[in-house]
Amino acid sequence: MSDQIRIALPQINTIVGDLKGNSKRIIDHIRKAEAAGADIVLFPELTIPGYPPEDLILKQKFIVDNKLWLERIAKENHKILSIVGFVDNQEEIYNSAALLYQGKIAAVAHKICLPNYSVFDEMRYFAPGKRPLIFEFSGIKFGVNVCEDIWVADGVTESQGFRGGAEIILSLSASPYFVDKRDVRLAIGMTRARTIRAIVLYNNLVGGQDELVFDGNGFVIDHRGEIITEGKQFEEDFIVVDLDVSPLRAFREKDPSFTQDKLQFQSPYEVRFVSLEPSDMSPKKPELESRKFTPLNRSEEIYRALVLGTKDYVTKNGFEKVVIGLSGGIDSALTAAIAVDALGSENVVAVILPSEYTSETSMRDANAVAEKLGIHTETIPIQNTFKAYLETLKDVFRDHPRDVTEENLQARIRGNILMALSNKFGWLVLTTGNKSETSVGYCTLYGDMAGGFAVIKDVPKTMVYKLCEFRNQKANREVIPKSILTKPPTAELRAEQKDEDILPPYDVLDPILEEFVERDKSVKEIIEQGYPREVVIKVAQMVDRNEYKRRQAPPGIKITQKAFGKDRRVPITNQYHT
Amino acid sequence: MSDQIRIALPQINTIVGDLKGNSKRIIDHIRKAEAAGADIVLFPELTIPGYPPEDLILKQKFIVDNKLWLERIAKENHKILSIVGFVDNQEEIYNSAALLYQGKIAAVAHKICLPNYSVFDEMRYFAPGKRPLIFEFSGIKFGVNVCEDIWVADGVTESQGFRGGAEIILSLSASPYFVDKRDVRLAIGMTRARTIRAIVLYNNLVGGQDELVFDGNGFVIDHRGEIITEGKQFEEDFIVVDLDVSPLRAFREKDPSFTQDKLQFQSPYEVRFVSLEPSDMSPKKPELESRKFTPLNRSEEIYRALVLGTKDYVTKNGFEKVVIGLSGGIDSALTAAIAVDALGSENVVAVILPSEYTSETSMRDANAVAEKLGIHTETIPIQNTFKAYLETLKDVFRDHPRDVTEENLQARIRGNILMALSNKFGWLVLTTGNKSETSVGYCTLYGDMAGGFAVIKDVPKTMVYKLCEFRNQKANREVIPKSILTKPPTAELRAEQKDEDILPPYDVLDPILEEFVERDKSVKEIIEQGYPREVVIKVAQMVDRNEYKRRQAPPGIKITQKAFGKDRRVPITNQYHT
Repeated sequence: MSDQIRIALPQINTIVGDLKGNSKRIIDHIRKAEAAGADIVLFPELTIPGYPPEDLILKQKFIVDNKLWLERIAKENHKILSIVGFVDNQEEIYNSAALLYQGKIAAVAHKICLPNYSVFDEMRYFAPGKRPLIFEFSGIKFGVNVCEDIWVADGVTESQGFRGGAEIILSLSASPYFVDKRDVRLAIGMTRARTIRAIVLYNNLVGGQDELVFDGNGFVIDHRGEIITEGKQFEEDFIVVDLDVSPLRAFREKDPSFTQDKLQFQSPYEVRFVSLEPSDMSPKKPELESRKFTPLNRSEEIYRALVLGTKDYVTKNGFEKVVIGLSGGIDSALTAAIAVDALGSENVVAVILPSEYTSETSMRDANAVAEKLGIHTETIPIQNTFKAYLETLKDVFRDHPRDVTEENLQARIRGNILMALSNKFGWLVLTTGNKSETSVGYCTLYGDMAGGFAVIKDVPKTMVYKLCEFRNQKANREVIPKSILTKPPTAELRAEQKDEDILPPYDVLDPILEEFVERDKSVKEIIEQGYPREVVIKVAQMVDRNEYKRRQAPPGIKITQKAFGKDRRVPITNQYHT
Repeated sequence: MSDQIRIALPQINTIVGDLKGNSKRIIDHIRKAEAAGADIVLFPELTIPGYPPEDLILKQKFIVDNKLWLERIAKENHKILSIVGFVDNQEEIYNSAALLYQGKIAAVAHKICLPNYSVFDEMRYFAPGKRPLIFEFSGIKFGVNVCEDIWVADGVTESQGFRGGAEIILSLSASPYFVDKRDVRLAIGMTRARTIRAIVLYNNLVGGQDELVFDGNGFVIDHRGEIITEGKQFEEDFIVVDLDVSPLRAFREKDPSFTQDKLQFQSPYEVRFVSLEPSDMSPKKPELESRKFTPLNRSEEIYRALVLGTKDYVTKNGFEKVVIGLSGGIDSALTAAIAVDALGSENVVAVILPSEYTSETSMRDANAVAEKLGIHTETIPIQNTFKAYLETLKDVFRDHPRDVTEENLQARIRGNILMALSNKFGWLVLTTGNKSETSVGYCTLYGDMAGGFAVIKDVPKTMVYKLCEFRNQKANREVIPKSILTKPPTAELRAEQKDEDILPPYDVLDPILEEFVERDKSVKEIIEQGYPREVVIKVAQMVDRNEYKRRQAPPGIKITQKAFGKDRRVPITNQYHT
C-alpha cells in the first residue's frame, strides 16, 4: 500500500461545442501529464462539451458525439488515470466525470448536486446522480466530485470522507468568477478538507464564455486546511503536485475526533466503490518545479476578468478586430484599454464621432487615449446626418419642442456608424456602457447600446474609476489621461449636459444599486439603511422601468454577485415597485 | 353526506406584480361566485403575484407582501370556500394554493411537481411540496393540484384519487399557449379523470405576459373522461358548474376495475387530509345559464393569441398607442391588422418609409393596408438621411464596393425614425419580423429589429400567409390586399432584391427550421428526412451564426413548441454545428 502519488491539474481553456478541439486539448494534456510523471490527471468540469453547453444538451446528437469523443480519448489513454468531464446518458442525462484507465472507461461519476440558481440552469438539463463515487488506486482512496458537489455542506464530500474513507477529493469544476470568489472557494475547500481530514484538489476551468469568465485559480489543500498550491488566475496553467497521505493517515488514527465525527455523520447518500488495478507507475519521476502564487488585488482581478472575457468572446467567435467609439469620457477610455490588453493595439480601432455638443476637451481627451494606447483612429462627425434626420422629421415634429428624442437620435447615429464599420470591415463593435447607467437606463437603445459585446456592462461607475487608476499604476504612466479621471461625467447630447442633472452622484447611486439590484433589497429596507428617501424611490423606479432596454442589450462580462442577463430574470411587464 | 356541489372557475387576467390589483380581482370574483350560488371558487395558479413572477420571488418583501394580501382576502371571504394561488414561505418557498374559508386560511397545498424545462424555471424559485392535499367539504372529497401536478403521470393526481379517495380534482393552472395546446391539455385532463374515476376541474390563467400568452380555456371533465364544459379561449370567462358525484360513486362501487387499479397503484406520496366544517350552503341557488363552446380553428387560435399578447403587452406596460413601419409587404400588413384588432385603429399609427428602392407597388400596397385598416399614416422618405450617411462615410469606405452595409444602413434609418417617433410621442414601436427570417438572421439588428415588441416573431412565414387569409375570410373582405399575398417577398434594400436570392423558398425553409429549431434535430437527421443536403447545411449555419442577433431582439409572442427567448437557451459562443 503506497502513500505517495503525483497528480496533474491542467487548468485549460475549453470552447463550448468544440468537441474535437476540446478532445485534442485533453489528449495533449494527458501526454503532458505523462511526461511530468503524474499518476493521475484531473480535468475541469464538462471538459469535452465545454461549459456551460446550455441547450446544446437538448440535441441528442450532441450527447452522442461527446460520448464518441470520450471513447476516442479513452483509447488514447494507457499510462495514467485520466479524469475527464462529459455528458452521460444512461436512461437520464448526467453531468459526469469519466475515469479513463488502461485504454478503457473504468468508471463514471455523476454530479449529484445540480445548481439551478444565479446563472445556472443545471436542473433544466441533468438528472442528479445518486451515489458518490470512491475509487481505490495505488492503495489510496479517492472521492470524485463535480463542482457543486463540494459546495453543499454535509453532502457528497462528507459522505466520501466519512463513509467511503476517501483520503483525497478530486473535484472537476467550472466555477465562474465574481469579485472575491477566490475567498469563497478557498473557504469551501478548506472547510471540506478540515472536516473530513482529506486532501482536496480542485481544478477549475479558465476562459470566457459569453457573459461568464472562469478564472481558473484551482487549488490543492491539505487535510489540515492549509493551501499547498493554487492555479494561476485568468490564465491557463498546469499544476503538478506530489501528495503524501501518510500524515493524514497518522492524524486520522491518532486523533479521536475523526472517528467521533465519522460516527456522528448522517450520510444522505450511499457511496459506491470502484477498485482500479494496481498501476505500474514509473519509479523515475522528473523533479517538480517549485510553484509560486501571489493573489491579484481586487482591481487587478476585475481588470483581468474583463480582459480575458473580451479576448475569448472576440476570438472564440471568429473576430480579429474590434471597433470602439471614443467619446473622451472614462467609460470608452477604459473599454479601449481593456480591448488593447486583450487583443493588441493593432486589433483595436477607435472612432471619434463628434457632434456640435462635443467639447474641445472631449476631442483632446479622446485623441489622447488613442495615442497613449497606440490605436488607429477615424474621426467621423455626425452633424450632417443629424441635420438630415431633423429635416426629414421636421413636419411630423412641428410644434414639439426638442427633448430626449433628439439626444437619442445622435446616440443612434453613432451606433449606426459603428455598425456600418462593423458590417463593412468585419470588426466587432464593443459598447462602453457601465453598470450604473445600464441599471437606471441612462443609455440609448440602438445608440450607445449598439454593439456585439458590452465589456464593462457589469462594472459600476465608481469601480470604473478604480480600474482606470489601477491601469495607470500598473503601466506606471498615464494610459488613461488624468483629465478624464477628474472631469465631471457627461453624455454631451445637448449643451451643458452633466450626468448629475438626472442622476444622483455615483458614490450615492452605486451603493443604492448594489442593494436594490444585487441584494434584492426593497426600497423601504434601503431607506432604513440611511439613504435619502426620494433618491432611493427614484432610482428603484428607473431600474424597474428600464428592464426593456436591458433585455435588448448585448452580452457582457459578469463580475459582480448579480449581473444583468441570465443572472437576473425580472419580468418586463411588472407592476411591483417596492 | 351530500353529493351535489356548485363550483365557480373565474378565468381571470392577472398582472405580474400587481398584488393589489390581483387581490381586488380575486375579491370581486369571490363576490361574483357567491352571487352565483357557488360553494367553491377556484382561481388560476399564483393568482395574487401573477404568473410567472420570475425573479420577483427573490425579493423577500415581495413574498411578505403577497402573504399580507392573502390574509386580507381571507378576511373578506366568509360565505364560500375560495382556493387562491400565492407564494408560501414556510422554511422554504413554495408555489401554493390556499383554502380560504370562514374568514381564515383553512389549509395550504404546495405544488409538488415543478416544471424546469422550456420557458419554466420553477426549480430556481420553489421547493417541491411533499404531500398531496385531500380535503373533505360538504361530504365530498377533493384533491387540490397546482398546474404541473396534474401533468405528471402516476403522481399527485393518482395519489389523491387512489390513496386519498378524491372524487373531484381542483387544479389551479397557468399553462401558456402554443399551437394545439388545447388538445394536449384536454388529453391530460381526460386521462387523469378516467384513471381515477374523478371529476377534474382545471382553471387556467388568461392573458399576455411578456413572451407568453395564457389562453384560458379551462375545463371540467367528468369521471368517464367526457368534457362537461370549457372556458373561452383568449378571453376572461366565468364558469359555474353544478356537479353531482353520485354517478362516480356508483361507478366506483360497481366496477371492480377501480378497486383493482387502486390496489395496484404504487403511490410516490403520502397524502394529507383536511376536513372543513360543514358549510351552510344556501339552499336557494340561482339557475345556471347553459354554456356553449366551439373551439377555434388553428389559424384563428394563433391569430387570437397574437392579438391578446399584443394588447396585454402594450396596455399592461402603460402604453396607449403603437407605431408600425409599413413596407407594403405581408409581415407589416399582418402586424398592423393584429395591432388594430388588439388596440383599435385609432391607437395604431403606420409610417411608410420609402427609399429609392421602394417600388410603386409597395407604396400602393402600404397605403392600401392603412386605408383598409382605417389607420393614420405618415410618409417619411429616408433618401436624404441615407445620402448624409453615405457622404459621412465616403472617406472611410473609399475603394470598398457597396454591400450589405448600405442595406443595413437603410433598415437602421427606418429603425431610428420609428424610435424617434416613439420617443417624441410615447408610442410603442411594434416590429414586424417573422420567425423564418429571425431564425436565419435575414433581418437587421437595430434596423427592422428595433422596437419594443415583436408581434409575429414566432410565426413562420408560411403561417403568416395563412393568418392573412384567415383575417380576410373572417372579415369577409380584403383587409390585407390580395396583391400583398401573391407578390414575391422582398426586403427592397437594393435594386431587384428578392428574399429567394438568399433564402430557399419558404415552403422548404419552414419545415427545415421546424426540425432544427423546434425539434433540435441534427443536420444529418434532417437530410435523412429527404431535405436537400446543401440547403439544410446552409440553413443550420445561418441559424447558429445569428444567435447574437436574436439575443438582442425585442420580446415577442410564443405560439410554437419552441420560441426564441427563454424557451431556447443556446450559447452565442458555440462551435458545435451539426
